[in-house]
Amino acid sequence: MDEFSFINSIKQSTYKQSTLLKGVGDDAAVFRQSSKDIVTAVDTFVEGIHFSRKTMDPFHIGNRALAANISDMAAMGASPVFYLVSIVIPSHWTEDELSQIYRGMQSLAKQYKIDLIGGDTVSGNELTISITVIGYAACGKARYRSTAVEGDIVFVTGTLGDSIAGYHILMNPGQFINKNYYYRRHQMPDPRVAFALELEDLQRVALNDISDGIANEAAEIAEASGVSITINYQQIPTSDSFSQFTVNQQRNWPLFGGEDFELLGAVPKRDWPLVQQAAQRTQTMVTEIGYVDIGKELVYLQEENGRKPLNKKGYTHFKQVKL
Amino acid sequence: MDEFSFINSIKQSTYKQSTLLKGVGDDAAVFRQSSKDIVTAVDTFVEGIHFSRKTMDPFHIGNRALAANISDMAAMGASPVFYLVSIVIPSHWTEDELSQIYRGMQSLAKQYKIDLIGGDTVSGNELTISITVIGYAACGKARYRSTAVEGDIVFVTGTLGDSIAGYHILMNPGQFINKNYYYRRHQMPDPRVAFALELEDLQRVALNDISDGIANEAAEIAEASGVSITINYQQIPTSDSFSQFTVNQQRNWPLFGGEDFELLGAVPKRDWPLVQQAAQRTQTMVTEIGYVDIGKELVYLQEENGRKPLNKKGYTHFKQVKL
Repeated sequence: MDEFSFINSIKQSTYKQSTLLKGVGDDAAVFRQSSKDIVTAVDTFVEGIHFSRKTMDPFHIGNRALAANISDMAAMGASPVFYLVSIVIPSHWTEDELSQIYRGMQSLAKQYKIDLIGGDTVSGNELTISITVIGYAACGKARYRSTAVEGDIVFVTGTLGDSIAGYHILMNPGQFINKNYYYRRHQMPDPRVAFALELEDLQRVALNDISDGIANEAAEIAEASGVSITINYQQIPTSDSFSQFTVNQQRNWPLFGGEDFELLGAVPKRDWPLVQQAAQRTQTMVTEIGYVDIGKELVYLQEENGRKPLNKKGYTHFKQVKL
Repeated sequence: MDEFSFINSIKQSTYKQSTLLKGVGDDAAVFRQSSKDIVTAVDTFVEGIHFSRKTMDPFHIGNRALAANISDMAAMGASPVFYLVSIVIPSHWTEDELSQIYRGMQSLAKQYKIDLIGGDTVSGNELTISITVIGYAACGKARYRSTAVEGDIVFVTGTLGDSIAGYHILMNPGQFINKNYYYRRHQMPDPRVAFALELEDLQRVALNDISDGIANEAAEIAEASGVSITINYQQIPTSDSFSQFTVNQQRNWPLFGGEDFELLGAVPKRDWPLVQQAAQRTQTMVTEIGYVDIGKELVYLQEENGRKPLNKKGYTHFKQVKL
């Protein structure tokens, strides 16, 4: 396949977004959006750091890379509309595998009606996927992590720790219950866009998506908002078959596992019923797990024997620094 | 330096663009633009393929990567406003070198008043810089390569072949005239934004920036517009001291050298004086080098002894495929 047939194979013949004026095929893409706020982020994934071929097919690699970006839009209360993809591809990857990566993205793009409007594919030594996603939010309704206030209810969507559980099962084949469920949570996570958009009527909701584990994400909200957050350990939702894992795994995965791409939020108490209604309308599980307090931008874990600071176990020293 | 001090070192304390609502520090950046079209592109640079430390300091690597992206905006008739940077950085690069890369970008960003609004820094084995740039164009005035029409004048800004000449001098130290000029053209190219914006009143102008050599760029315009383009070899502008290079170099560099980041354009004959006035107002050299003809989407080179098809000497097989 030469470069032109490759471009044709990934270039969309039609675009779904009516605000797009020019897609792939010029020096840049062009769109027009006069009534909404525009939201944009970039996320980069390097083989061996962010994903492994041991646990993911090329299709999954592409799918999950785009899912992580779409999840950033959900965390902003935005609807994803466009994406641009830059791939560095080692020569030992076949063109079929490369196509599979794009197919993994296309499958999700189709579901969300988002258009591929630019990017490039470059040869190199290390598979690297960098995706820029662009979304639209209702004017003034982009959701910031800096808006949590004392007395807010802290909630989370879905169940936590499933992605790392899936990774564990894939890396340690054996007798596990609900394998396919965990595989899917690791390989093809579902961003919570529909739920986040359903919160549009709320005056205020602080949102983060859970890419680095709830301990980290709660700390980001606490720091940005200048508050403390207390999480009730017993209330953290996990999936039904989670008891099959060791006690340590059951404890650490939901707190630090990351990449579940669920949403962590904080809303005024009076709006909690609205959050529950939004959850119901979008068939999203939502659980109250804690509360916002005044204090020193710390996260606490409340357990039966008392409340202790919950430390972040985060990335350090350029493994990944997200701006 | 830990990740937070690093983020603080590259995070802007203030932003210049009034349309920005949220910069670095959340899951995504947010901006609002109700009166202009929005233009966006991504370009990726891999060490050893797109640049070499033999001819560039880290400062230049960052500077030129952003310049190439800004040049895409110029080629669209757009004003650059924001950029997002994703860097994969090998562990043998020092944090000081990494900072220098960002400083190279910041220097250009300051000049163009554009804001860094997102990105990430990831460790990996191969230095890779992927930049997403966002710009604004007057409504309906984004410049497409598909708009050239029979009878148009074909023009180019500046002089061609200087970047590869600079690369050559850096790789083959010796007696050369105007070394610093050529170094600068290779290491710190000047995108033609001011000139492109000054063309705003023109009804129609097809534009491409010269990243891959004029033979390629002319072919892109010819193909997208369904026309032929004839370039008069004698009219191709080169710098004064270009005669110091070999006959082959003098011939091939301006045609195929690439990365000069000048603009190649096609305008109706009647508008040529307007182009010349825009050039004068922005102190940009502009030269008529050919014309648009009906025909088979081919580029011809007109020389004293006749007119022959000019073949692209382009990238193939995923060295780089730009969408």
